[in-house]
Amino acid sequence: MKLITGVTPSNIKLYNTAFVHASKASRNNFGLKEDNERLEYLGDAVLDTIVADFLYRKFPLKNEGFLTEIRSRIVNRDTLNKVGGEIGLGSLLVTNSRLMNSKNQKGLLGDALEALIGAIYLDKGYDKCKSFVIEKILRNHIDLDLVVRENPNYKSLVLEWAQKHGHEVKFQIVGEKGEAFKKEFEAEVLLDGETFGTGTGKNKKRAEQYAALQVCKELKLI
Amino acid sequence: MKLITGVTPSNIKLYNTAFVHASKASRNNFGLKEDNERLEYLGDAVLDTIVADFLYRKFPLKNEGFLTEIRSRIVNRDTLNKVGGEIGLGSLLVTNSRLMNSKNQKGLLGDALEALIGAIYLDKGYDKCKSFVIEKILRNHIDLDLVVRENPNYKSLVLEWAQKHGHEVKFQIVGEKGEAFKKEFEAEVLLDGETFGTGTGKNKKRAEQYAALQVCKELKLI
Repeated sequence: MKLITGVTPSNIKLYNTAFVHASKASRNNFGLKEDNERLEYLGDAVLDTIVADFLYRKFPLKNEGFLTEIRSRIVNRDTLNKVGGEIGLGSLLVTNSRLMNSKNQKGLLGDALEALIGAIYLDKGYDKCKSFVIEKILRNHIDLDLVVRENPNYKSLVLEWAQKHGHEVKFQIVGEKGEAFKKEFEAEVLLDGETFGTGTGKNKKRAEQYAALQVCKELKLI
Repeated sequence: MKLITGVTPSNIKLYNTAFVHASKASRNNFGLKEDNERLEYLGDAVLDTIVADFLYRKFPLKNEGFLTEIRSRIVNRDTLNKVGGEIGLGSLLVTNSRLMNSKNQKGLLGDALEALIGAIYLDKGYDKCKSFVIEKILRNHIDLDLVVRENPNYKSLVLEWAQKHGHEVKFQIVGEKGEAFKKEFEAEVLLDGETFGTGTGKNKKRAEQYAALQVCKELKLI
């Protein structure tokens, strides 16, 4: 365990529980299932906070929309599964193969990673847990430059902003030109009924993204 | 500030920023708006973690579905606004009344409370921030017994469980009896195509809740 986490466990039972999938859970004397789901609930929150803090300090000039977007790309299911596999959690997992199917198998490693974070948090406290997440996960397994360079979903940035600040937002396709295989669409974003951005693209979705990008720039959301 | 938080600020600038609403933000030399939204983003995550931890320890025999449900009732917008008002954040808020409307005014106190939590976290660290949240917010302003006694949304508990464990769930109304003003509906919950619970109620929603309650008991989700 020290090899993976860099910390010497004090309460080894916590770490053992972190790798028990619900399909293999036994019930203890109090009737509580002894699997990793409670630890995962805790670790999920702790991970969110540590990544929020890391990005807050890393990007002192970026606003909360950017920070929220980058965080959601880091803590998403696919990334956590990948990292869980890379740090070797696969061989530690305890599951009941008879009860497993392709759907519940999918998130196993990410869930175990969150549960492990919960276990370290309880065993060693927040600051040591933060060091583990930053040193062993973020620095070694996340290419932050790459994550930032991915195109954000500008439309959802605009929708979030509008919801938060009490504005009405509407996306609409206002034009369509070109022939069947070379079509171009034109989208428009209305804020409280007024046109705030327009964009064109080879499909409706892309046209909306370009229109939303214009709004994001205008509102300095990116 | 010490009166509200119980801690003596080291970096007072952080606390000042926590009370500046976006409508009143100026831009600093780097072009960054100086308002409380970055702190709110951070405080929101920190609060989630502290409440997650508090409930984890408080309810050692409850499963993650229960803990998640109770946490979401504590950190919801209405509760945070109420607590923000009760601890006296209203008089500290800096807003631009010309730019305020009934919608963006609504969440002001809760947002400021989250931003204040972000400020304490940065200024004093996680453990001091945790003491503030537990002593000054949870113990003084949240009636946990009352929160727990509220009827949970059983339907969403079932939906969450199904999504997480890769099962298909379907709610359907299968019967309707009685006259216009004394109707009774019967609902059924199907898990992977098989009936798992039924319930009756005076409207469709209530019938579904009773059916979901049966499923929750069966699956030991509550």
